[in-house]
Amino acid sequence: MASQKMWAVVAGVGPGTGASVARRFAKNYAVALLARNPANYEDLVKEINSSGGRAIGISTDCSDKSSVNAAFDQLKKEDGFNGNLAAAIYNVGGTFIRKPFLEMTDEEFEMGWKTNGAVLPLLVETEKASPSNPPTLIFTSATAALRGGALFSSFATGKFAMRALSQSLAREFGPKGVHVVHAIIDGVIDIPRTKEWKFDAPDAKINPESIADSYWHVHAQPRTSFTYELDIRPYCEKW
Amino acid sequence: MASQKMWAVVAGVGPGTGASVARRFAKNYAVALLARNPANYEDLVKEINSSGGRAIGISTDCSDKSSVNAAFDQLKKEDGFNGNLAAAIYNVGGTFIRKPFLEMTDEEFEMGWKTNGAVLPLLVETEKASPSNPPTLIFTSATAALRGGALFSSFATGKFAMRALSQSLAREFGPKGVHVVHAIIDGVIDIPRTKEWKFDAPDAKINPESIADSYWHVHAQPRTSFTYELDIRPYCEKW
Amino acid sequence: MASQKMWAVVAGVGPGTGASVARRFAKNYAVALLARNPANYEDLVKEINSSGGRAIGISTDCSDKSSVNAAFDQLKKEDGFNGNLAAAIYNVGGTFIRKPFLEMTDEEFEMGWKTNGAVLPLLVETEKASPSNPPTLIFTSATAALRGGALFSSFATGKFAMRALSQSLAREFGPKGVHVVHAIIDGVIDIPRTKEWKFDAPDAKINPESIADSYWHVHAQPRTSFTYELDIRPYCEKW
Amino acid sequence: MASQKMWAVVAGVGPGTGASVARRFAKNYAVALLARNPANYEDLVKEINSSGGRAIGISTDCSDKSSVNAAFDQLKKEDGFNGNLAAAIYNVGGTFIRKPFLEMTDEEFEMGWKTNGAVLPLLVETEKASPSNPPTLIFTSATAALRGGALFSSFATGKFAMRALSQSLAREFGPKGVHVVHAIIDGVIDIPRTKEWKFDAPDAKINPESIADSYWHVHAQPRTSFTYELDIRPYCEKW
Repeated sequence: MASQKMWAVVAGVGPGTGASVARRFAKNYAVALLARNPANYEDLVKEINSSGGRAIGISTDCSDKSSVNAAFDQLKKEDGFNGNLAAAIYNVGGTFIRKPFLEMTDEEFEMGWKTNGAVLPLLVETEKASPSNPPTLIFTSATAALRGGALFSSFATGKFAMRALSQSLAREFGPKGVHVVHAIIDGVIDIPRTKEWKFDAPDAKINPESIADSYWHVHAQPRTSFTYELDIRPYCEKW
Repeated sequence: MASQKMWAVVAGVGPGTGASVARRFAKNYAVALLARNPANYEDLVKEINSSGGRAIGISTDCSDKSSVNAAFDQLKKEDGFNGNLAAAIYNVGGTFIRKPFLEMTDEEFEMGWKTNGAVLPLLVETEKASPSNPPTLIFTSATAALRGGALFSSFATGKFAMRALSQSLAREFGPKGVHVVHAIIDGVIDIPRTKEWKFDAPDAKINPESIADSYWHVHAQPRTSFTYELDIRPYCEKW
Repeated sequence: MASQKMWAVVAGVGPGTGASVARRFAKNYAVALLARNPANYEDLVKEINSSGGRAIGISTDCSDKSSVNAAFDQLKKEDGFNGNLAAAIYNVGGTFIRKPFLEMTDEEFEMGWKTNGAVLPLLVETEKASPSNPPTLIFTSATAALRGGALFSSFATGKFAMRALSQSLAREFGPKGVHVVHAIIDGVIDIPRTKEWKFDAPDAKINPESIADSYWHVHAQPRTSFTYELDIRPYCEKW
Repeated sequence: MASQKMWAVVAGVGPGTGASVARRFAKNYAVALLARNPANYEDLVKEINSSGGRAIGISTDCSDKSSVNAAFDQLKKEDGFNGNLAAAIYNVGGTFIRKPFLEMTDEEFEMGWKTNGAVLPLLVETEKASPSNPPTLIFTSATAALRGGALFSSFATGKFAMRALSQSLAREFGPKGVHVVHAIIDGVIDIPRTKEWKFDAPDAKINPESIADSYWHVHAQPRTSFTYELDIRPYCEKW
């Protein structure tokens, strides 16, 4: 697999957005799939490897800095990894907590954004080696990044913080040629877990493959024309 | 040209975004190009027609409602136009006015957004006939849609108004399957007129073909996964 | 009335915010009350004049530039008006239009913000004469300034435009010492017309006197500490 | 001191906003001043107590939940504290960190907002006893709450998070009659530490007493007319 020198990392792989993004980026890159529970990536790793792509899974607690650092250390030792990271998709933190502020535990109120320190130096190095293919860091976010809510103090705080971080990083690393993207996914995603959720319209859920297509589209933008922020929602979503 | 039944309208065609968008959409649709001065579309109409596409130009004052209505009346009589409008791109109002509020004339302070009434019924009808290919209305906007400025009272007022209108239309017509998009173009576009403008970086201007690619990308989104707003800027732009 | 040299103009006087603001500013200034229908200010003019203040009413179509200019010409000839305008409150445009975009007439979609050209030169002159008491221009706005809605394309467009204009003016005239304020009034105001509107809570409507108190508070801020934007809503309002 | 039953807590007392707010609220309430270093409140406690008010200081690490809880436990045992907390001003986290993302330590990137759990139950109880005087929780924030920046990933993340939290709390506790406010202080505050900072204009710094006046103004609003967010900046500030 000498020709497949570029890698993408997908942090937070499950049956929804993460898996679709992994499949899409695996068409062009070797992919490293990070999730706490190997059950979340094992089948997908097999599927990609058996269909001509290359994938590895690394059990990682994405809310724990040392665990993320260990995952990147493992990636760097991977056969065929030569330091070039074309894309990283941060798809973590979707645990949707809806409860009164005074009932939340500290853990529920904490967030996992402290872990981007491992990925940015790799993206900066990649850009130096391959400026025409801008390395990309994509954050999967939510409408709560724009708007707090009565029972969403934890979720909104995490997503506002993610937007602040991604916006600051876009302004700091954009001029270095690294493309940072904040994607606001606004709606229910069409995955096995939500299969039974019914709405008035039959097609009221976001297709995760469309999210993956949009992620690939922004990744493919030349550096003259970076999108920092976009939203994705079903046509019938109230917003 | 029996097979090319769908049309796209590009209002505001000049040497930049409008022309690139017209070329991109002409790969899939017949295109009607609207501009006040025929010199702005004549060569492009020839180019598209001579390279296997289909294009017509209609001289239109896009800030004048009756002129826009007349343009649509002409389009409806066009041979091969059967009422199906796949996309309309509103690329008007880019005249960038930077002057103190008290020195502006009324005309400079006025805007041309009142003209969308002609296009929406066509898009709604198209959707009924072809729901799997959602008709799309794209507004070319600017950073001034998000932020007023000391000498930008006219420009910002127009762009804020465009954002309000597009956001309201997205919420009103989205549930009908019509995709409304607000695109924030933030930076100098690389066109003949800006060729001599120099920046520190050699690639500091937005490639209008990239804008066209992003417009096509959002147009191609299925209705489960609509993007309402995205921004596009050079990697080195301060924002 | 030699000691009462400063004036305030309230454009858009009716039984709600305008009247309360007029009463509050009349405690310190002579006030000119503008409304199309004299019935909207006649009683209030009498009330203020008979209780030790000074008020005049000027019949004005605040959406018509020449009518507004005529009102200011009349004010300038007023006995005791020496050019010093301490405050102007623009309380116009509250006509709340809620209807589908395609059913609106042009008139309903138009707005009346083009009329601020008469007031700003007066405020600038006042500031030169009295920098320690910064002259203030306050726009009464609404939540629709921040958010479009399915049936609010006209109302939102007008309020977004008002916000763009006020924000641009704040940035242009702030450094000249003129204080420009955008007040987002979010909720039903407690006036005779809304008396029968019932909500779950008994005190669910905004007290217009509280709005007047907040307008006075921002007017009284020294120029080291200007507020540009504030919102006001009932405690039980969903937002 | 039987007549002075209501208390206010000011968390984060130093020579600037905190001290001015403490003096202003001490005109009407007993005040508890929290700061890590007693040197930050000792003189102020004496000043307030010797001029007819009542103040106590409590050494508190406001970024540490157990320290904040201990401070409130101490307050509850205070002679004359009967559970009625009229206002809490959260004036913490102003340490302005400006450095590249990759050079920050974990500590610099962490924030101290996790400590509001102690104050909200007290405010809710106070509201039940005294609904006509709505208890108020005010967050002192910054422009970075609205906008990330190249070297402000930590500061912006903290302020975005503060805005998300305050907005969520306003929506959760507003209907319970508790007034939550997010104050965006945008500019250099005029305190001894900034005395030597020179600007083009002689009055380019925010007067902390004006901040205190605005905090008092929003605290005094009736619950029919709550302001959630306001900004304060010098007239000559670029924004």
